[in-house]
Amino acid sequence: MTLKEKLRPYNIILASGSPRRKQFLTDLGLDFTVLPTNIEEKFPANLQGKDIALYIATQKANAISNLKNNDLIITCDTVVWLDNTALEKPADEKEATEMLQKLSGKTHQVISAVCIKSVLKQELLYDITEVTFNDLCEKDIHYYVKNFKPFDKAGAYGIQEWIGLTGIEKLNGSYTNVVGMPVEKLYKQLNQF
Amino acid sequence: MTLKEKLRPYNIILASGSPRRKQFLTDLGLDFTVLPTNIEEKFPANLQGKDIALYIATQKANAISNLKNNDLIITCDTVVWLDNTALEKPADEKEATEMLQKLSGKTHQVISAVCIKSVLKQELLYDITEVTFNDLCEKDIHYYVKNFKPFDKAGAYGIQEWIGLTGIEKLNGSYTNVVGMPVEKLYKQLNQF
Repeated sequence: MTLKEKLRPYNIILASGSPRRKQFLTDLGLDFTVLPTNIEEKFPANLQGKDIALYIATQKANAISNLKNNDLIITCDTVVWLDNTALEKPADEKEATEMLQKLSGKTHQVISAVCIKSVLKQELLYDITEVTFNDLCEKDIHYYVKNFKPFDKAGAYGIQEWIGLTGIEKLNGSYTNVVGMPVEKLYKQLNQF
Repeated sequence: MTLKEKLRPYNIILASGSPRRKQFLTDLGLDFTVLPTNIEEKFPANLQGKDIALYIATQKANAISNLKNNDLIITCDTVVWLDNTALEKPADEKEATEMLQKLSGKTHQVISAVCIKSVLKQELLYDITEVTFNDLCEKDIHYYVKNFKPFDKAGAYGIQEWIGLTGIEKLNGSYTNVVGMPVEKLYKQLNQF
């Protein structure tokens, strides 16, 4: 039985506006509707790394009220974690440039968390991938920020965009997790849900 | 100066029929024409790992005759290397199934080599990525082979396809290298060509 057949009783709702996450669920062969939540992505200051991503993914799931009996909500959050700090979505070109300068020549962690929620239960999962940037020159950072405007991306970059293709030396872990969804782990978990 | 501006004197020719490699060069912002070579991908039996990919990439470049003064040829070859053996393109469903059974639950290497050639010089580069599959069940292998027909892919899988999303636990190295082109290294080398 395929995952689609297993989940047929459910009305799957992807609570994310990300076209990349939408594409991943489509690639898994699932039918679903998209319903982006619009919560402020705040978290308690004492949280670290994966706990931030898990917290925000849970908050996003909790923001959806009036779950019907057969609803299955999927929410995601991605955190870029460098030197014990979360790099969030940059507000403007200046912040995006500063983030990429910080990431240049270093290895950081990308942590994506998922919350799967029905009226009966709620499950969490996450994955961590290490990403190593080569030394980015000022010119390349400027070119990327100017042309790609990565203001909707934690850490100010998309691995699938120009800066990811030219600037990322290697990664250790799941690729889809860096794009924004730990697809391999999610597939396993949905099979058992 | 962008890479496109640097390479403006050249007439860039991508000698590969792969839509994924074509997309990568497009993402690098380059103008180029596509001219797939049609050589038999044979190699001397004593060659191992990266030397196979480098040999075939070179053979592909040599297959193009009558280079003009401003031509810049780019050829690629990707080898899937497991237990000291190259897994080539599967001939049929049976071979594809056997290859995926071999890859299941193990780590293998993906080696992509590139040859850059003009009338004056010829440069080679390659990258190695380690890819780890989780334990693939027979049902999933059958589903993938039946629906995706991976006969044009070394090792019988595409990391960007369903089996890559659901079956690959992690990778160590460059992602684009697994798709079929070591884009980060190629970008650096083209900048210096």
